Amino acid sequence: MAREMAEQPARLRDLIGRADEVFGRVLSVVPTELHGITIVARGSSDHAATYGRYLLEAATGKPVSLAAPSLHTLYGISTDYRGQLVLAVSQSGATPEIVACLRALCAAGGSGVAITNDPASELASAAEVVVQLGVGEERAVPATKTVTAQFVAFAMLALALGSAPFSLDELGSVPGLVEGVLDDGGPSVAAADSLVDASHLIVVARGFMYGAALETALKIKETCSLLADGYSSADLRHGPIAAVTRGFPVVALNAFGPAYEDVASLVGELRARQAFVLGVGPDADDEVGLPAEMPESLVPVAAVVRGQQLAHALALRLGYDPDRPEGLSKVTVT
Amino acid sequence: MAREMAEQPARLRDLIGRADEVFGRVLSVVPTELHGITIVARGSSDHAATYGRYLLEAATGKPVSLAAPSLHTLYGISTDYRGQLVLAVSQSGATPEIVACLRALCAAGGSGVAITNDPASELASAAEVVVQLGVGEERAVPATKTVTAQFVAFAMLALALGSAPFSLDELGSVPGLVEGVLDDGGPSVAAADSLVDASHLIVVARGFMYGAALETALKIKETCSLLADGYSSADLRHGPIAAVTRGFPVVALNAFGPAYEDVASLVGELRARQAFVLGVGPDADDEVGLPAEMPESLVPVAAVVRGQQLAHALALRLGYDPDRPEGLSKVTVT
Repeated sequence: MAREMAEQPARLRDLIGRADEVFGRVLSVVPTELHGITIVARGSSDHAATYGRYLLEAATGKPVSLAAPSLHTLYGISTDYRGQLVLAVSQSGATPEIVACLRALCAAGGSGVAITNDPASELASAAEVVVQLGVGEERAVPATKTVTAQFVAFAMLALALGSAPFSLDELGSVPGLVEGVLDDGGPSVAAADSLVDASHLIVVARGFMYGAALETALKIKETCSLLADGYSSADLRHGPIAAVTRGFPVVALNAFGPAYEDVASLVGELRARQAFVLGVGPDADDEVGLPAEMPESLVPVAAVVRGQQLAHALALRLGYDPDRPEGLSKVTVT
Repeated sequence: MAREMAEQPARLRDLIGRADEVFGRVLSVVPTELHGITIVARGSSDHAATYGRYLLEAATGKPVSLAAPSLHTLYGISTDYRGQLVLAVSQSGATPEIVACLRALCAAGGSGVAITNDPASELASAAEVVVQLGVGEERAVPATKTVTAQFVAFAMLALALGSAPFSLDELGSVPGLVEGVLDDGGPSVAAADSLVDASHLIVVARGFMYGAALETALKIKETCSLLADGYSSADLRHGPIAAVTRGFPVVALNAFGPAYEDVASLVGELRARQAFVLGVGPDADDEVGLPAEMPESLVPVAAVVRGQQLAHALALRLGYDPDRPEGLSKVTVT
């Protein structure tokens, strides 16, 4: 896991270097009259999809939905997906449910794109075009380099399909910023040390950052056998905050931008409830830093890497092998 | 909370009795060329929306998405929602974020429907038509009768908009089955007793039942100050299952139908990991029963009521006042 985390700057640089090729492939299958976009994914890929859901709706202005795979795999409903661009995301391209769902939506008129690390996979063969992540084999069970590559692939699709809230140049600076985060692991190790007695925790964020909160929570669950869940700061206020009592551990991800104030004020409320809040963000007093100079919509890539560091450090501190979580395998059959 | 729970059979009967009126209202605003459906909601309403998302896609075959409100309220993106039916759900109709989101999507060409308990609310005035829940004032902070009414309202919309996986007659039998569940509270109290030492738990389900799992988890969080999260059985296998260790409490909701086997086999796996699993379903050996004779797609209404019973009983057992959870109020401003 640590070795694959370290590969991320170089792999992301390669992927962004193929932007023209990716733009061309995707644009070749966009429906003439685009009604909306549907993303099909599970697990870590679903968190990249959540990030993509925000970016693509911001860029295209069209409704973006996350597919409910069981409708197509278990219930076999009949659908009309004409005018839909369907993006199916799976690092292995081998998850049967994702392949079956993509096939069903393409048969219903959708234009299918596979976002995968394996261009020879079933998923790739079910799609009209493939966006290849090209990050090399991933051996550790917790996905790291494939996840940040999926996040970056969605950012590239946003640039291709409409008015993304960042430029290609700004996207180009992401690998360097990720490198900076990786070179500065001390704060994550210290934060992990402070979580060593936690029996559960939550990760909060808002807007573009929400997918990074879900992914950070999953990495902690997978590597530390600890219940960790991601919440949007708005959802947390709609009831779940009642579960946050004295000493309850909360990781709060934040970035400068329109969502900043909402997360910052929630952190104040949580501290007033005497929760134990670890700030991961751009402020000088955040326990773990995030680049302050990136556009808000790109910070989630760096936040995912912070989440990997935190999960990895906490797993080691708890005596787990982060590469081989008990009872998990690399491809999940559902 | 208990009194409002007890009102549910009568209130649901009234609502279903207005089916013709509801069908007429909704059909009057469906776009001539329907491209898809978008649902706007937060909190408990968002769990009814999750149930509606499955039902409406099954009934219409069109992509259904859950809106990301921050895109419209914080980021102010420009959108094109022509051809979209937009369903905004809020019991009070007063949540500013939901009102602002509905207004933005209607201004972008969407056809707006408000599903609310208050026909004089801001949300109602922002919509073209209103589906009134008509369940009377809800005083307890944890929403109960408004939630089951929202679930039933989505079932009515599915009947109005396409081929629902159940008939109006079958929907008509739901209030009686809910009454049966309410009259048989003993198993929920016994199940709550067995959870008294839990420091967190998860609720799993799949497909049509997934929204009921999210809602049950929220009720427990709100009333018992206990971290409880809902998972689809498929998502759980994609990593989170690593957090389920010996003695970990799991509530599993199940119903006879295409998703049954998946949840049943997951329960077997969880028990093999020595998790503490409480079955809430139609099998004779389930700790808490659910009607076996209902169509799978309607059982979630009964499951939500089981979740209310469980949360209410556990809150009392833990010494909390379920009507007034600490730090929550009836209308959330985000």
